[in-house]
Amino acid sequence: MERQIPEVVVSRLPMYVRGLTELHKDGIDFINSKDLGYRFGMSSDQIRKDLSYFGKFGRQGRGYNVALLLDELRQILGLDRQWLMAIVGVGRLGRAILDYRGFIPRGFKIVAAFDKDSDVIGERVSGVVIQDMAELEIGVIEKKVDIAIVAVPSTEAQEVINKLVRSGIKSILNYAPICANAPEGVRLESIDPVLALQSMTYYLAKNRDYR
Amino acid sequence: MERQIPEVVVSRLPMYVRGLTELHKDGIDFINSKDLGYRFGMSSDQIRKDLSYFGKFGRQGRGYNVALLLDELRQILGLDRQWLMAIVGVGRLGRAILDYRGFIPRGFKIVAAFDKDSDVIGERVSGVVIQDMAELEIGVIEKKVDIAIVAVPSTEAQEVINKLVRSGIKSILNYAPICANAPEGVRLESIDPVLALQSMTYYLAKNRDYR
Repeated sequence: MERQIPEVVVSRLPMYVRGLTELHKDGIDFINSKDLGYRFGMSSDQIRKDLSYFGKFGRQGRGYNVALLLDELRQILGLDRQWLMAIVGVGRLGRAILDYRGFIPRGFKIVAAFDKDSDVIGERVSGVVIQDMAELEIGVIEKKVDIAIVAVPSTEAQEVINKLVRSGIKSILNYAPICANAPEGVRLESIDPVLALQSMTYYLAKNRDYR
Repeated sequence: MERQIPEVVVSRLPMYVRGLTELHKDGIDFINSKDLGYRFGMSSDQIRKDLSYFGKFGRQGRGYNVALLLDELRQILGLDRQWLMAIVGVGRLGRAILDYRGFIPRGFKIVAAFDKDSDVIGERVSGVVIQDMAELEIGVIEKKVDIAIVAVPSTEAQEVINKLVRSGIKSILNYAPICANAPEGVRLESIDPVLALQSMTYYLAKNRDYR
C-alpha cells in the first residue's frame, strides 16, 4: 500500500469499517456500492472511488466481499493490533472517557492517566492509577503510549499538547474547545460537540419557521 | 443570504467562529487569509474561497475585519440566539454531557433529560430533572426542544432517534457508536471518539518504526 491515500478518504475509512462490521455481524457476505451508499448517506460513485484505492474488492453483479474488504481496511488502518493510550486530565470529562466501554473492543486501551490535582493522584479509576502531571513526559515513554487524550481545561490544553509532543507522542485526541496547534508530523484531532451543534443550527436557522 | 452554501463549507464555519472569537478576545482587529490559514492548518486559498460565500470582508492589504466577519458568521450559523436541547440517556456519559460547561457560553442550553431507569427518574442533574423516557415524545414538544442529544446504549440508539424524529426534532447529536439513520430533512451528526482515533492510527501504522 505505497500509494498515497488522500486525507479525506482516510478520514472516511473508520466509518466504512464500522458499517462493514455491522454487516458482517448480520451475516451479510456481499454488498454493492449502491446499498453501501444508502447506509452511509453517500453516493455510490464516491464509495467506488474511495474503495478503488485498496485494490479490487468489487465483483460485477455480486458487489463487495464484506469479510475481505473489512480485513483489508482494518489492516490499512492499523486496527490489527492494540494501541495504548494515556489520558491527561481526570476531571468529570476525563472520568467519563476512562469509563467509556467502546475503546477496548475496537483496539484501544487506556494504560496511563495524569492530573495535577494532588487530591486525585494515586487514585485508581477504571483500573488505571492516576499519576502526577509532573511525570507526564517520562510516564508516556515508560508506558509505551501511542496516543494521548487531552481532557484538561482549555487554558491548560496547549501547554499539555506541547509537553506531549516533546515526549515523542505522534497522535493526540484533544477534547478542549481551543484551536490547538501541533507541529508537522504530529496528528492532532479535536472532539468538540459544540462545533457539530453549530453547523446543525445553520440548517435550523435557515428553516426557522419549521414548526 | 439566499445563495446555497456547500455542506463542507458550512461544516468549517464553526471552526472559523471559534478562531475569530479568540482573535477578537486578543484584541486583534484585522487578519489576512495567510495568518488565518496558519491558525487553521488550511491554505489561504481555501479560506478566501470559503469566506467568499459571505460577501466582501477582506480589504486589500489590511485583511479581514475580525469583528464584522465574526458577527456575520454568527448570524449565518444562527448563533445570535439560544438553542434548547434535550438529552436522552443519563448514564455516565449523559451526566458528563449535562455537566459540560462549554454549552451555555456558546448558545446551547440543556432544558430536558430523559431516561428509562426508574431509579434516576425524578433526580435533578445539573439543574435538570430527569423525566421518564415514556414522556420523550411529548416532553420535547412541551419544552420547545430544538436539538436532541442521544447518549443511550448502542442497542437503543436507533429506536430513540426514530422517536425523536416522530416528535418533530430536526437536529440530533448522536453519541452512540452506530451507523445511525435519519430521514431527509433531519440533521444527524455523530460524535464517536474511536472514529477519530482510527484515522490517526492509519498514520501511526504507516510509520510503525517511528521511535
